[in-house]
Amino acid sequence: MHKTQYLIIFIFLAICQISFSQKAVSEELRPIVGLEPGIPQDEAAFFIKAVFEHSLTKGNCHSWLKYLSDEIGGRLAGSPESLEAVDYTYNVLNRIALVDTVYKQECRVPRWVRGDEEIVEIRNESETRRLKALALGNTIGTGEEGLEAEVIEVFSLDTLHILGREAIEGKIVFFNRPMNMARINTGYAYGEAVDQRVHGASRASEYGAVAVLVRSMTTNRDDFPHTGVQTYAEGIEPIPSIAISTNDADYLSNALKEVPLTVYMRNTSQILPDTISYNVVAEIRGSEYPDEIILVGGHLDSWDVGGGAHDDGSGCVHSMQVFHTLDALDYRPKRTLRCVMFMNEENGLGGGKTYAEESNRRGEFHLAAIESDSGGFSPRGFGCSAEPDVFPKYLAKLQSFDVFFDPYDLYLKPGGGGADINPLKSQGGLLIGFKPDGQRYFDFHHTTEDVYRNVNERELKLGAAAITSLVYLIDQAGL
Amino acid sequence: MHKTQYLIIFIFLAICQISFSQKAVSEELRPIVGLEPGIPQDEAAFFIKAVFEHSLTKGNCHSWLKYLSDEIGGRLAGSPESLEAVDYTYNVLNRIALVDTVYKQECRVPRWVRGDEEIVEIRNESETRRLKALALGNTIGTGEEGLEAEVIEVFSLDTLHILGREAIEGKIVFFNRPMNMARINTGYAYGEAVDQRVHGASRASEYGAVAVLVRSMTTNRDDFPHTGVQTYAEGIEPIPSIAISTNDADYLSNALKEVPLTVYMRNTSQILPDTISYNVVAEIRGSEYPDEIILVGGHLDSWDVGGGAHDDGSGCVHSMQVFHTLDALDYRPKRTLRCVMFMNEENGLGGGKTYAEESNRRGEFHLAAIESDSGGFSPRGFGCSAEPDVFPKYLAKLQSFDVFFDPYDLYLKPGGGGADINPLKSQGGLLIGFKPDGQRYFDFHHTTEDVYRNVNERELKLGAAAITSLVYLIDQAGL
Repeated sequence: MHKTQYLIIFIFLAICQISFSQKAVSEELRPIVGLEPGIPQDEAAFFIKAVFEHSLTKGNCHSWLKYLSDEIGGRLAGSPESLEAVDYTYNVLNRIALVDTVYKQECRVPRWVRGDEEIVEIRNESETRRLKALALGNTIGTGEEGLEAEVIEVFSLDTLHILGREAIEGKIVFFNRPMNMARINTGYAYGEAVDQRVHGASRASEYGAVAVLVRSMTTNRDDFPHTGVQTYAEGIEPIPSIAISTNDADYLSNALKEVPLTVYMRNTSQILPDTISYNVVAEIRGSEYPDEIILVGGHLDSWDVGGGAHDDGSGCVHSMQVFHTLDALDYRPKRTLRCVMFMNEENGLGGGKTYAEESNRRGEFHLAAIESDSGGFSPRGFGCSAEPDVFPKYLAKLQSFDVFFDPYDLYLKPGGGGADINPLKSQGGLLIGFKPDGQRYFDFHHTTEDVYRNVNERELKLGAAAITSLVYLIDQAGL
Repeated sequence: MHKTQYLIIFIFLAICQISFSQKAVSEELRPIVGLEPGIPQDEAAFFIKAVFEHSLTKGNCHSWLKYLSDEIGGRLAGSPESLEAVDYTYNVLNRIALVDTVYKQECRVPRWVRGDEEIVEIRNESETRRLKALALGNTIGTGEEGLEAEVIEVFSLDTLHILGREAIEGKIVFFNRPMNMARINTGYAYGEAVDQRVHGASRASEYGAVAVLVRSMTTNRDDFPHTGVQTYAEGIEPIPSIAISTNDADYLSNALKEVPLTVYMRNTSQILPDTISYNVVAEIRGSEYPDEIILVGGHLDSWDVGGGAHDDGSGCVHSMQVFHTLDALDYRPKRTLRCVMFMNEENGLGGGKTYAEESNRRGEFHLAAIESDSGGFSPRGFGCSAEPDVFPKYLAKLQSFDVFFDPYDLYLKPGGGGADINPLKSQGGLLIGFKPDGQRYFDFHHTTEDVYRNVNERELKLGAAAITSLVYLIDQAGL
């Protein structure tokens, strides 16, 4: 070949290299080089395409989540880990150039510590069998010696009233109604069953029970106990409450069909005095309508076991990724954008309540508040709610965005919000819950398995892209 | 309390026990005891609700899949394992009372065997580094001694033409264009990259290459080589082709930037004479329109590594679950339903072609053919296609089913079919591809990781329920 031929080949290969090497893909934001079939071809569609492309190829949310989940770990409100997470996310947000201000917003939170590893043992004449157990959040302990009592199995809170004090007094009440695995929506099934966990101890205590055991909240049969919050009603004598795995709940239930059983329980959980913690709030001031706030957030606290990866590290890093992506795409919002890491969703909502109180005190208006608190799974869409007088208007506007979400198979539907943003409803804006696929959520929820390795990087990034796209559309079009 | 009070309590508790115990849920088909919000309240909606409930609580597809994947394992066409899978699924289908006939349909398939564990080593003066490798399906071997040659990296098939024989002759061509991780649809990204794997060896051979290495087809950076089919064009001198993991492809690519390298490759794969295998076909004769066939199927063969759990054990057990559920719900179809386990999708399509030829010979009409061959993930919907003259009519009818699928967030869209059912298109019916969430598919596709533990039981069962619902609607409403 002639030298010029070699030169042409060299140039061609250099172009190939730039076009196709992973390095080039990941180190610069490439212009959109071709749309997949079905994407509408106008400016907003192109921007949204760029959002997905940036999130998938240059998003950082997976590395932030790995740090939160694997390095910091479980971060119950009031714990040293939760404060470490406050500092970490403050610093991540502070490094995003587009952000005007970041601050820590003080809030009061309860302080509960689990204590020693829990012991729950079936004791009868022939054998002792240890069950996989986790104390429920905010429970008292049994005392150092533990307690032992006969077990009575029930399937609903109201059964206690029918059984009466005579049948319950001095016993351990075992709440064993399973989540209905026939439900398509696992969150709905959770809602149907979780009264046993939240109110079981309070209700059983009314009838003289000495403690409660609760079947774990999952559609699976497995060996992981699921913790979660329980609350004591005013004026009720508190009693210890501990969750056991679904396999062990089935075992105990079957054993109780044969013969009355006593169970030994020991946990050294402690309720300490309330303490101070923080929401982390980052703001990008709007250029045209600064008084219309669009909030995106998740909760920074998690249960102490596991790493709070899906619940709700994912929601936190989704929200930070929204700002990171808008910054990378050099987007200047018309409305004021806030990214909020809420504290204490799991066992008190101290952060969410404080945020809304402060916001109301300042006379702010949140046009839209989006919460991601359903895990880091593949995005399915958004559910929304608002005060009845304004909801139809918002819903109609939101559904006009369908054309942009259809190519990504994302829906926008009535019904949804989030525990941390719900106190903002009275401001008259729209509340939106991000809805990822929920089929695997209760495989991990509130267990030692809720760790980074159980989050899929692409699914996490697609969730961030979906939320970023919605923030962009609301900012552009208003509501 | 009085004795009558105890009696009332006893009866109440007995009722609670029946209503809420898992045993009751799993041992009988309960009537629908309450709809989740948003489900339309008419007969079809109720039936579909019962389909989902049966699949989730009494479906067997997970246990069939565990057997196919963990007990039988990888089952490439022509292998003893593939014949074991034929017998196993024949027997499962034969035990379903609703089924009128089950038969094995003979088909000719290629026979390829992998041979010894593949060796791919970078050899330079300072070190030898072994790469994670799998021979591509239908490749020849290198011979016992292996081969060693200089490596030339390219990013597309057409680059070969530009480089010409002088640059390629005697070398190993390394195809290293990554799947575009910015694509939302991973299948689309696969389609953009897979020409390197399928045609790389043939094309490189034209220019005198001695072998090819191919970057694995996945959006991930990981250590699993992905096998898959490659084909030799007519009249081309066959050369060996081997896939390497994406991490090792990146390593090799970076190393090549420094210095020319030689690689040693050894595989003892063999192409044996074609052999006989079987599709498994089960039929339920329609009561009103027996000549209108609705087919549901997957492919029974898989790659020899891993257990073919997502690809395509899931599609097979989805299809068998359709019949199992319709049987359990005592459904009598108006149209003829066929459940087909296709053989040899992966490396020849012998089963799909034979099925269509036989069907055409008998003058049959497949009103609809549904294939599940995209994994056992959470269902997203269905894509469909047909001959242009009939497609608009079918699509309109199909979209009238939206009302039934909306509560399950399932879409029905143009675009889709399946490799095994595509030869039926000329009969003028509708081809439908089941579309589960595809984000994790290429984490496992054609690797040792495609095993049962990487399939989620609920997601698998929901897929089966979605397909069953579509079969029911088409059977009821026609097209």
